[in-house]
Amino acid sequence: MSPIPPNSDFTLHNLPWGIFSMPGESPRVGIAVGDQILDMSKVGEMGLFDFDTSVFYEDVLNPFMALGKEVTNGARTQVQEWLRSKDGPLTNRPDLFEDRLAATMHLPVRIGDYTDFYSSIEHATNVGKLYRDPDNALLPNWRHLPVGYHGRASSIVVSGTPIRRPSGQVKTKAMDTPEFRASQNLDFELEMGFLIGKDSTLGEPISTAEAEDYIFGLVLFNDWSARDIQKWEYVPLGPFLGKNFASSMSPWVVPLEALEPFRIAGPVQDPEVLPYLQTEGLNNYDIKLEVSITPKGGPETIVSHSNFGYMYWNMAQQLAHHTVNGCNVRVGDLMASGTISGKDAASYGSLLEISEGGKKPFLLADGTPRTFLEDGDTVVMRGWGEKGDIRIGFGAVSGQITE
Amino acid sequence: MSPIPPNSDFTLHNLPWGIFSMPGESPRVGIAVGDQILDMSKVGEMGLFDFDTSVFYEDVLNPFMALGKEVTNGARTQVQEWLRSKDGPLTNRPDLFEDRLAATMHLPVRIGDYTDFYSSIEHATNVGKLYRDPDNALLPNWRHLPVGYHGRASSIVVSGTPIRRPSGQVKTKAMDTPEFRASQNLDFELEMGFLIGKDSTLGEPISTAEAEDYIFGLVLFNDWSARDIQKWEYVPLGPFLGKNFASSMSPWVVPLEALEPFRIAGPVQDPEVLPYLQTEGLNNYDIKLEVSITPKGGPETIVSHSNFGYMYWNMAQQLAHHTVNGCNVRVGDLMASGTISGKDAASYGSLLEISEGGKKPFLLADGTPRTFLEDGDTVVMRGWGEKGDIRIGFGAVSGQITE
Repeated sequence: MSPIPPNSDFTLHNLPWGIFSMPGESPRVGIAVGDQILDMSKVGEMGLFDFDTSVFYEDVLNPFMALGKEVTNGARTQVQEWLRSKDGPLTNRPDLFEDRLAATMHLPVRIGDYTDFYSSIEHATNVGKLYRDPDNALLPNWRHLPVGYHGRASSIVVSGTPIRRPSGQVKTKAMDTPEFRASQNLDFELEMGFLIGKDSTLGEPISTAEAEDYIFGLVLFNDWSARDIQKWEYVPLGPFLGKNFASSMSPWVVPLEALEPFRIAGPVQDPEVLPYLQTEGLNNYDIKLEVSITPKGGPETIVSHSNFGYMYWNMAQQLAHHTVNGCNVRVGDLMASGTISGKDAASYGSLLEISEGGKKPFLLADGTPRTFLEDGDTVVMRGWGEKGDIRIGFGAVSGQITE
Repeated sequence: MSPIPPNSDFTLHNLPWGIFSMPGESPRVGIAVGDQILDMSKVGEMGLFDFDTSVFYEDVLNPFMALGKEVTNGARTQVQEWLRSKDGPLTNRPDLFEDRLAATMHLPVRIGDYTDFYSSIEHATNVGKLYRDPDNALLPNWRHLPVGYHGRASSIVVSGTPIRRPSGQVKTKAMDTPEFRASQNLDFELEMGFLIGKDSTLGEPISTAEAEDYIFGLVLFNDWSARDIQKWEYVPLGPFLGKNFASSMSPWVVPLEALEPFRIAGPVQDPEVLPYLQTEGLNNYDIKLEVSITPKGGPETIVSHSNFGYMYWNMAQQLAHHTVNGCNVRVGDLMASGTISGKDAASYGSLLEISEGGKKPFLLADGTPRTFLEDGDTVVMRGWGEKGDIRIGFGAVSGQITE
């Protein structure tokens, strides 16, 4: 193993899982360690584990995740111990590692169902002001339940995949009838997502206390949005074509257990939530988030600093709510947070909010103005936790807008 | 092959595909023929086909569907010819057939994404009157685009699966704050669904002219709804827990091509739709639909007669709209019609409409009143087309409500 660079996202505290391939080779399971990837298919061949290591030759993490937390956490802890050891089975074995920057990363999971929540009170308030009533921005149900809706799984792509500007029906106030055209209000949404690692049974709710047992790990998630398409289509059944043209996911899945050091309390929930939504202990996570825009050939501009800790509704509440009616979850399902905004404009998680619905352009570092995304713009989202000597990062999720 | 009973849904004109198993045996692919099932895994072994017939040993139709229409339609036409022949390879081969009524039927497809449309103008108008404004029941976008939203795939079950009454948050006008309780407004939704048989490419729309090439076949679909849960949760992002506790699908997939005799014109669309939604020829299908309720131990009451031909938006328009922004579809995706209602109460496709939101109870044959479904009620939906000597049916989709 090469030394881990200072400030790396992929320290020995982290050890996230992903699917990688080297030129001319098949995709398989790896763990990110600094600027390298530990090839778990090779580690599996060493006969060190007491489970069926053929899962490390799969092109998705689902079969590995389905082995359950005892196995997956056990494997991670074991690898962590070996990597820290001066004379373990992975010591002086450069053949087990690949150059991370030379690898191609793949969508890590075969996603069954994708659900998007709407769990940042600042985001929901900002959107409510822009789209509906400034004086009653939050709808009456918002503080009583984690509002969510079903998204499209087929169009979720791995970081780096180009994003084609969608076309669709748009009707502005100035138009008498809708027109078909390329979206002029293309936006990002800064989100995090968690991946389900355990099947539940149809008809059987998951309690908030049980929820963490179903959460394998987390990723960064950019839920691209075409605001003009969405605005015309979304009543009464919710967002559809304004969302489902693409969503981008970071390639490394950070295990929930790696995030223990970053647990914090969430916002006080007022009014008190119903018993099935009540949680104990610290259920939010202090994960710093940032978003940048880089025009083609131009410099990068950070346009938002936010934090996963801002979430009003935590993951345990989201999962308990999602299943309280008996809806089942399956290994590989994705639950995303919804856009994560903070209290001020510098922490808003979408251009809709930053530019106040397009009314207030802002300048990038190259001096060009933006309200929404332009062709050629690359959006990068990063996320990391830091506490004392511990740093754990998610890497990045990026995507460039094409015509 | 045994003689096909008079009035059978599964005539030689039909030949729908499904996944069945016999006691103690594995699920595999079959074709319904009268009261029998032609075991396609056995037919495959006969070496009569020039494609890889191992697909007939799978427990879902996806690998077979993925072979493409040339192969799947070719196989069906070939089987049809052999079954009609007096001296074909399937003649005097009772060993190739199983007793359909002794078989267990399975969910025929591994569903990737499930989309539900809202394409009956009568249903959308009725719901708009009940939930929103009686004078402006249809929202402004409704006649311009086929409104749709994403549903939950994990909780789609095969006909016959018991349906557990969901619990969730409800807030009636009489309540100050929401309560958690079992749904008191449990409803059916009479729908049909079509299954995608061909992958499309992310970023590439499917035109209305190309749409049929992507439609493998159709099923009956009961999209169960908990109206009280839905009413409180659905703003602003659409239905969620009011829907995703379960949806039921009929087990036999009727190939699109079998429905050729039943093509009819759809309703006139006014105003004219945008060019990407325009279609030529006859794009609706005259499929008669009926819904019954049978209380536990009681007689069956038909509560609705409707028709798939009533749809304002046809399947080609739904698929063209769904993909016009570049959203991709994959083999096994399900697109459902939304509730199919006709003009009068005897043809409404949900109890919400029949009972006017619960205000107007009606009597079942046993004399008991209903507004919404009671525990023990079994809902059965049937569908069939008839033209001259040709009858093609979908069988049934049924489900009994349990506590």
